[in-house]
Order: sequence, then C-alpha cells, then structure tokens
Amino acid sequence: MNPRVLEVMPSLIREVSSRKKSTSIDLGLGEPSLAPNPAYLDEAMRYVKQHGVKYTANAGEADLRDAIARHYGYPNMSDLSNVCVTVGSQEAMYVAIKTLLDPSRDELLIVEPCFPSYRKMAMLEGVSVRTVPMREQEDFAFDAQRIAGAIGERTRAIVICSPCNPTARVLRAAAAETLSRALERRRGDPVWLIHDEIYREQVFVDDAAELARRYPHTIVTNSLSKSNALTGLRLGWLLGPRAFIEQAIKVHAWATSCADTFAQRVALAIFRTPGALQEHAEWYRERRRGLLETLGKSGLRYVSPDGTFYVCVQLLPGSASLDAANELIEKHDVVAIPGAAFGAAMEGWLRLTWVASPDLVAEGLARIADYCAKGAVA
Amino acid sequence: MNPRVLEVMPSLIREVSSRKKSTSIDLGLGEPSLAPNPAYLDEAMRYVKQHGVKYTANAGEADLRDAIARHYGYPNMSDLSNVCVTVGSQEAMYVAIKTLLDPSRDELLIVEPCFPSYRKMAMLEGVSVRTVPMREQEDFAFDAQRIAGAIGERTRAIVICSPCNPTARVLRAAAAETLSRALERRRGDPVWLIHDEIYREQVFVDDAAELARRYPHTIVTNSLSKSNALTGLRLGWLLGPRAFIEQAIKVHAWATSCADTFAQRVALAIFRTPGALQEHAEWYRERRRGLLETLGKSGLRYVSPDGTFYVCVQLLPGSASLDAANELIEKHDVVAIPGAAFGAAMEGWLRLTWVASPDLVAEGLARIADYCAKGAVA
Repeated sequence: MNPRVLEVMPSLIREVSSRKKSTSIDLGLGEPSLAPNPAYLDEAMRYVKQHGVKYTANAGEADLRDAIARHYGYPNMSDLSNVCVTVGSQEAMYVAIKTLLDPSRDELLIVEPCFPSYRKMAMLEGVSVRTVPMREQEDFAFDAQRIAGAIGERTRAIVICSPCNPTARVLRAAAAETLSRALERRRGDPVWLIHDEIYREQVFVDDAAELARRYPHTIVTNSLSKSNALTGLRLGWLLGPRAFIEQAIKVHAWATSCADTFAQRVALAIFRTPGALQEHAEWYRERRRGLLETLGKSGLRYVSPDGTFYVCVQLLPGSASLDAANELIEKHDVVAIPGAAFGAAMEGWLRLTWVASPDLVAEGLARIADYCAKGAVA
Repeated sequence: MNPRVLEVMPSLIREVSSRKKSTSIDLGLGEPSLAPNPAYLDEAMRYVKQHGVKYTANAGEADLRDAIARHYGYPNMSDLSNVCVTVGSQEAMYVAIKTLLDPSRDELLIVEPCFPSYRKMAMLEGVSVRTVPMREQEDFAFDAQRIAGAIGERTRAIVICSPCNPTARVLRAAAAETLSRALERRRGDPVWLIHDEIYREQVFVDDAAELARRYPHTIVTNSLSKSNALTGLRLGWLLGPRAFIEQAIKVHAWATSCADTFAQRVALAIFRTPGALQEHAEWYRERRRGLLETLGKSGLRYVSPDGTFYVCVQLLPGSASLDAANELIEKHDVVAIPGAAFGAAMEGWLRLTWVASPDLVAEGLARIADYCAKGAVA
C-alpha cells in the first residue's frame, strides 16, 4: 500500500469524540447544535422530485457558482468562473493543496494552532510542511510579522484559518494589511494565501479581515456546515483566480466528479435568500455573551473568542492535553479536545465547543475547573 | 502549481456532451433517464427533519455500512468493517488507487477499453499506468489470459470494470476463474483486483462474475448512481479486506470527511427495501430487447451488450472517432461519445447510451448509420 497513507494518522479529534458516553457533556466535536432551516431542504426536495437527481457540471450548477461569486464579490473573483463547488470545505482545502503545490519542490506553510487536516492532506500528497506557531503569551493572536518571517525559499502557499479553529482568534484588518504588504514586496513567484473562511459567519469583532480583498493570490475555502448547521450536507466551495479554478476543477472532477445535486439545490436556496448565511449569527452572539460570564467566574485561563463557537482553556502548567482529555472523559464525563491535536503550540490547552445548552456548558466548565484545581493540590 | 494537475486533461466525455444543442438526440452522457423512486428521498427527508444534517462517522453510518456488507455478502467482506461509504463510486475508485499504490514504485494495470477516470486518477497521484487492451476482433470480450499476461514486475493492482463502460461486455465466470487462478499462482506480494461494479444491476447474461467471490485480494467499488437513477446523489462505497478499508478510511476522511448524511439515509432506505437495487432492472432488459431489434436493422457493426446501458458501434475503417463525434453533433444533431476517450483500442468506434426513448434511440442510430453510409460513398 501507499506508505504515505500508512503513515498518516486518523483524526485524534474524532477518536477522542468517539469515546463519549451517553451521559457525557459534549464540548468536543465541532458542529452546531442548532437545527437547519427546513425551508431550504424543502426547496431542494421540490427540485429533485421534479428534475431527478442528475449529475451537475463538475464545477457545480452554474446558477450556484454565480450566486456564490456574487454574494462575496471579492475583487477579481466575482464571476462563476472563479468558483468550484466542492464536497464540503474539506474537499475544497484538499483540492487547493493538491492543485497549488508541486510535491517535488514546494512547501506548505501552516499557521498553527490549526485544524489538523491541512497537515494530513499535505502528508497524503507528499508535500513538505513548515509550521509557524502563534504564541500562547499573545493568546494565539495572528502575528503577521511572524507569519511573513516564516516563509521559506520553497514556500508556495500559506494556510490561514480565520476565524480560527481552535483558537477562536480572528485575523484583524491591520494584521492582514501587514501580511499582504509583506507578500506583495516579495520577488519571484507569488506565494498563495489559502484562507479557510468556514467560521466566517461567526465573528464577534468589527475588523475581521477577508484576505481575498487585500491580496490577489488568495484562495478561499468555505461551506454551509457551520453557518447553516449543515455539516452533514457536504457542500462547500473554492473561490479563486480563474487560472487556479480551472486547474482545481480537474482535481475535483477526477476525485469526486461533482457535489451532491440535492445539496447544491439547498445551497442555491440559501444564497437566494437574503441574510440566510447570517440567520444563526445572533444566536451565537447571544450564547457568547453568556459564555463569557460563565468563563469569568470559572477561574480558568481562557482565550476570549473573536469568532467561531470554540473557546480554548489552559490546563495546569505541565499538563499533557491528551491525558487530561482522557481523564476528563473517563472520570468527569466531559468531552474536550486536547490542544495537542492542533499543533505543539497548543499543548497544555483544551478546545471546547460552546454550542450545547448554557447550563451544560457551565457544568462542563465547572468540572474542568474542578479537575484543574484538584490537579493543583495533587 | 502541481505539474501533475496541469498535465491531466479534463473529461473529453463531458466536453463532447456539453456541445449538445437543445434539438440534439443525446446518446452521450452515462446516466439513467428514469426518475429515482421518491420513497427513498422522502424517508431521508423525514430523518434529516428530525435529526438535522450532522456529520456521520468518516466511514459512514454504521447501519448503512452493515447493510451494504450484508447485502453483498462477499467472502471475508460481510462485516461493516469491510465497508467505507464514499462520495460516489468515483471517490471510491480514487481512494482505492491512492491507498493501494505507492507512487514511487507501483504500477496500475488498466484493462481497456474503459472509463478514462482510472488513468487520470493514477496520473494525479503520480502512479505509473500500464494498459492491456481487449481486442476489437473479439468484440472486446474480457480475455483473462491477456490480462494475466500483461502483469509486470511493478504491477500491484488491476482495474476491471464489469459490466464494462464503454464496451458493455461482462466478465464471465470462466474468465474470472482463469484470472483469479493466474493471480493466485503468482509468488510474492499479491496483486490487487479493483472491480468497478457500478453497472452490476444492469446485467443481461447469466454467468456474470463477481471477482470478490473468487479472489481474496479484491476491492469492490460501487454506487447508487446507475442502479437507482441517483447519479447526482454522490453516494458510493468501497468493499474490501479490513486492513485495506482501515487505510482507505483515512484517505476518504482527509479528502472529503464523510459522505452526505441525506444521501446516506437514501441509501439506507434502499438497502432496507428488498429488491430496491433491482427495481429498474426489468426496464433495462425490456429496452435492450427493442434496441437489439433496431440495431439488427441498422446495418451498423455493434457489440451486443452483455450489461450496462451502452452499446458500441463501429465507424467506417480509418475514421477518427473524435472527428466523427464532432460531425455528428454539428451536422446530424446526435451526441455520441468518441471511442478514443476510452483508450486506443476503441478508436474508430462510438459509445452510445440507449436510455432515451426507443424512437429517439432509433432515430439517432439511423442518423449514425446514414452518416457511415455517406462516408462510404465519399
């Protein structure tokens, strides 16, 4: 078999989450607890009942590609030829990495802490990875100078997830400006930015940056998973310069052919409904207000969330996050994801989801605080 | 960008099909003209309305994996651990090739004529390809001796599509026996067989072979696309030995995460309904009977279909199939796929789909016969 496949590890997040018991308070897996709006599902159903469930063009339905391009209106990316509809943002990222990077030569720079899939995808492709960790002492804020400074001779693309899973930090306008200027000053072939925007609709600060508005060699990945509570629908997209999208469509076409027609009709209904991508946003803002109160009383060190539905809390100094997560499941019936899953920079931390009901989140946080306090005594 | 991506060509089949006019008789793209049974869609809708559209496990819903494994009951593959649910059979094949073959060493043997995706997938992975063409003078029948004889020192897997797109030939029991015995006699690491069974429910002969019943190192790919007229649902699966499936799940997980939850519920409804996979089979048998009558009167040389919903017809000697396909679209308003898309062995032939209404198929065949007759005069 392929040694790259043998070497790559399965998802630690999924593994930890799968050990959840029926009684567990689940602050683990990253998906909304809200129900999706059934109106979009109904609209898609009416369509497939009338038209069947036929293949679409590899790049997706033209109407959907057009609606996505126009919704975001990013400079030089506002036409349907700038969009490839994908099987969730996971396939969008996979296709982006596979399309942009030459395994024999290029290197991917990953801004950590981050979702582990970027590294695994690169490993599967035989693409070298370099990482640049954001710092605990700065609450993992995006440091544009550090990112730009980490670019090596072989670096051809940089992945940035903002709002960030797991840190919940957002790349601010000023940092984005610094980063894009640094990239534009470089000589030679441009370095691509891949902006994972999957938490774009869960932002709690005013100056969140959209890299595609600042830097022309930006690729955007996104999906309906988090904005509309449709994680299982597997409907995402790539936005990028036309020359990139033309190549990306081939990878997508030979790997998966096209995205699900039913899912594409759900997406079209959403993009045709003004405000639909933001319809859960107020719920998250409200929950976050309650969360911050609870966190303030918990005694835990945490990183105040700029976006997403995560919050990172720090364990006691010297704690191994995987051991802590295991102990929390086994002895305290709380599922939390070990920071180590997101890179060495987050060892000693846990990532928590705050989409469960406020009393469950509060109880989960109390148990984690209690666990930390007891550790201090022992 | 990745030179392998730059080199790989987009789909010629899709390109030819896309030139269809509103008036064209479409004997091109490979998808059923039947409507899917709405009962399965309704059942999936009830589920997602009640439970939301959440992620499933990467390998798919346990109930569905179990139902698939038990439905086929292939030796040593009848447990849910032998199944990975995928984004159509296209992703199943992509994952199989990526998982089985080490690009630095291994070679994939492709039995031609065949669907072009196998070669493109291997190209994207940097995996060497060797082909073994079945012969026109034998009506492209599967020749087990030729296949076994083509295995090279580096060959680690063989792809066979039976029933075959495009030839419509079926691998018969006797040939499968010869092939599996030849493979078992080999020393050293076993050579894997990848059996693309996507047209399994459209078989018109009695002795079609299921390689997974004969040879233990068989991987099966399949989907609901052709059996249940659900091409756009993107729901397929891999069946294989557990050690293979464990590795394949990782590739699937990092490339696409999981298959669509709605689509998985449709599949579960189908696998729970006795006979559901065969519910369109009689329609194909009946259409085939009419087709054979029409073909007999057409004067065209054709390969009698053992399975699928295709039939291959021969152009005049020396005809280039792409030129013929272009001329047929432009001047005769018939869409047909050039044989060259399926490998050099089928140059000089056209692949036709016979799922349109019988009178349209007859009219399309008459125009092609007329085109050939005129060519003979000129």
